[in-house]
Amino acid sequence: MTEISSGNCSDALVRLLRETTWEDVPPALRHELKRCVLNYFAVALAGCNDPTTQLISDIHAPFSGPRTARLVGRGERMDPPTAAALNAIASNVHDFDDTHHPTIIHPTGVVAATLLAHADTHPVPGQTFMLALLLGIETQCRIGCAVSPFHYAHGWHITSTCGVFGSAMALGKVLDLDADPLRAALGAAASQACGLVEGLGNMAKSLSVGSAARNGMMAALLARAGLTGPARPLEGRFGFTQVFGHKPDLDAIRIGLGADWHLTRVAYKPYPCGVVLHPVLDACLELAHGLTQAEIAQIETIELRGHPLLRQRTDRPGVSTGREAQVSAQHAVPMALLRGETGLSAFTDSAVQDPAVRALGGKLCFVDDPAVSVESVCVRLHLAAGRTVEQVTQVARGSLGKPLTDDELETKLRELCAYGGSACRPEPLIEAVWRLDELDDVSTLSKLASGET
Amino acid sequence: MTEISSGNCSDALVRLLRETTWEDVPPALRHELKRCVLNYFAVALAGCNDPTTQLISDIHAPFSGPRTARLVGRGERMDPPTAAALNAIASNVHDFDDTHHPTIIHPTGVVAATLLAHADTHPVPGQTFMLALLLGIETQCRIGCAVSPFHYAHGWHITSTCGVFGSAMALGKVLDLDADPLRAALGAAASQACGLVEGLGNMAKSLSVGSAARNGMMAALLARAGLTGPARPLEGRFGFTQVFGHKPDLDAIRIGLGADWHLTRVAYKPYPCGVVLHPVLDACLELAHGLTQAEIAQIETIELRGHPLLRQRTDRPGVSTGREAQVSAQHAVPMALLRGETGLSAFTDSAVQDPAVRALGGKLCFVDDPAVSVESVCVRLHLAAGRTVEQVTQVARGSLGKPLTDDELETKLRELCAYGGSACRPEPLIEAVWRLDELDDVSTLSKLASGET
Repeated sequence: MTEISSGNCSDALVRLLRETTWEDVPPALRHELKRCVLNYFAVALAGCNDPTTQLISDIHAPFSGPRTARLVGRGERMDPPTAAALNAIASNVHDFDDTHHPTIIHPTGVVAATLLAHADTHPVPGQTFMLALLLGIETQCRIGCAVSPFHYAHGWHITSTCGVFGSAMALGKVLDLDADPLRAALGAAASQACGLVEGLGNMAKSLSVGSAARNGMMAALLARAGLTGPARPLEGRFGFTQVFGHKPDLDAIRIGLGADWHLTRVAYKPYPCGVVLHPVLDACLELAHGLTQAEIAQIETIELRGHPLLRQRTDRPGVSTGREAQVSAQHAVPMALLRGETGLSAFTDSAVQDPAVRALGGKLCFVDDPAVSVESVCVRLHLAAGRTVEQVTQVARGSLGKPLTDDELETKLRELCAYGGSACRPEPLIEAVWRLDELDDVSTLSKLASGET
Repeated sequence: MTEISSGNCSDALVRLLRETTWEDVPPALRHELKRCVLNYFAVALAGCNDPTTQLISDIHAPFSGPRTARLVGRGERMDPPTAAALNAIASNVHDFDDTHHPTIIHPTGVVAATLLAHADTHPVPGQTFMLALLLGIETQCRIGCAVSPFHYAHGWHITSTCGVFGSAMALGKVLDLDADPLRAALGAAASQACGLVEGLGNMAKSLSVGSAARNGMMAALLARAGLTGPARPLEGRFGFTQVFGHKPDLDAIRIGLGADWHLTRVAYKPYPCGVVLHPVLDACLELAHGLTQAEIAQIETIELRGHPLLRQRTDRPGVSTGREAQVSAQHAVPMALLRGETGLSAFTDSAVQDPAVRALGGKLCFVDDPAVSVESVCVRLHLAAGRTVEQVTQVARGSLGKPLTDDELETKLRELCAYGGSACRPEPLIEAVWRLDELDDVSTLSKLASGET
């Protein structure tokens, strides 16, 4: 495919969707798409029985149409739009999903949930699914770039507001929509884009994530049936980028389309907490590994030397909920040192009550050093009798510079599957994800992830 | 109830919802609520078989849960959230619904559709319904006022973005939610508020109107089940008024709550076209009544002397669609003069093709006169041999200063019912609406409006 860099940006995206084929997807991206899917199932399995997922499922169940689409880890089914919403919610509820670094969009969940819910009734080959996933991620990340950084800073929950476009266009690709209906699907998505940052930290966030999947799916299906929409849904006078952005950068949508893929800027979190804490936890796990419990008991001071953002974002003593703990160095650091715990179980409402963790957290201090990158840190422990030990993290695990390995992603899936408490058996699912491009029908994945017997 | 004028505005609205009883509703508002409902059924019956309603219904039907809630004029049922969406869409598709003048919100459709869809499975007495409708209208109009005029001017489709709050709070009242779930319902609504002006003139608009009803209904049901949300969904740092507004006027939400009702600022359109054309059509119908066809054939010039806004909004020759014709003086005026037609049939794609209408429209000119109010106009016809006739409208029919009479609203319902082509018989429905406060179960109305046999 030739590079698309001219014309209006709605049409440019439509052309990308129309013209990109499986052959255009480089091998490295094919592999990365499998990693996206592995991470998707990991986080969706972690969240499948979360109280938020459970509550929203319970209230939607009486209104479900024919139950044809599987829910990750729940051994039950809902109608496809409801399943798409619930699986997207499950994948995002812990904020442990993948991250597009330029925008902090979590791009895979909404798109994968939509495509897989559709595939449970309309067989979709693995390569078609992967291509559509790539294009759905590309769509939402580029639209997100066009309105960033204003958009999120102003209060929009960008994973939701932009996710609906990813869902709509990915399903539009699977449905092989022509240009006019693809443009109409963009318009239908724009008309329903929603989600506020005020919803973070409470269940309201999950509603907009679910809506992004549901409404994106319906946008594509309505567009196929002839729904009309605006000629320029993204850049028109009252189009998405104009209304949700401030001086939007439309070139971010147009330039390099089909050549520079935003999937290359997507990474997977090793820890379910604020990304600036990641290098800190890398160092703390190393330190805990090398010290005895007796030595840890001697710690007099924990010194974090890092970029000022580390202190600004995570200097949060005395937290009272697991959710607050996700952005608290005073909680995360002693959990890692004392217990070696850095997973979801380290950030629960009960974990923050541990007196030993609270006591050790009280010994933490920050040293701002603007010369240290945000992906780096030096953690220094002052022990008894003037002894100090320190550990430097140059590049945090899970950053774009040091992505999780395939093995680490497999381990993440196994651990989160166990955490989420479903009947899903992880090994066959992992094995199937690595064979994704060979599958005749991706509903194989949904079946394995469902825990259906 | 005592006036609520202090505290944060989310809590103030929640208190209004909690504390207002049927006894607090003045007799004039009780009557006005019946007029709202009459107008709602009129416009929903007009739109029930519109291609947009039909298409969206067709695509949602395969995903409908148990079909318990009636669709206006369609003789079929859907699950309640889908029925709420479709009936709200039907009522709004022609832009012929009621108008809250300070915000141009069309407030009744989304709320009434939600309440009636719920009432089809959970009997709701007429007085409870009317009280909830009043509070739903109040909620959305006050939130709309807080973000106006920036909100609509910036590109938000205010009927959708604010309608979701009306739907959520009205159903919350019917469900008798406590303060915490009512606040959570506001948060759930804020998280899903959507709709762009770019969707006007195409089918995308209807999606956000439908979402407002559906998501409002689900917000109330989720909140009842324990969904959590932000503490200050409207005025928080990233709450609705902050993100969707510019320097929002929070006093517009707080001051006069429970005393100054926004329903008093709601009016009903006599003509399905831009409101600035309404005084013009009043005058044209009078003129047509007094002239013979031979005299009309002699017209050399049609002079509209009005406020400059009349020209700015409606100087639109050569339109090609019915929708454009709704804001074209060059179309609306000759239709009224030549055919006496000012209803929906005057604004169809085929009506704009009439050569006689186009010819007469070409003879129209505007005279700007800032001294004339936007509710007034002078229409002067220059006939052959220097003869002129003129007609002045001082206050347009359907404005707040000259609201449609009860008889005119009944006539509107009869005409729109016939236009929409349903099996609904208007007389029993009209009679039941006037007895609304005496009904034990408002599903009586839905049944009469459905056309079910």
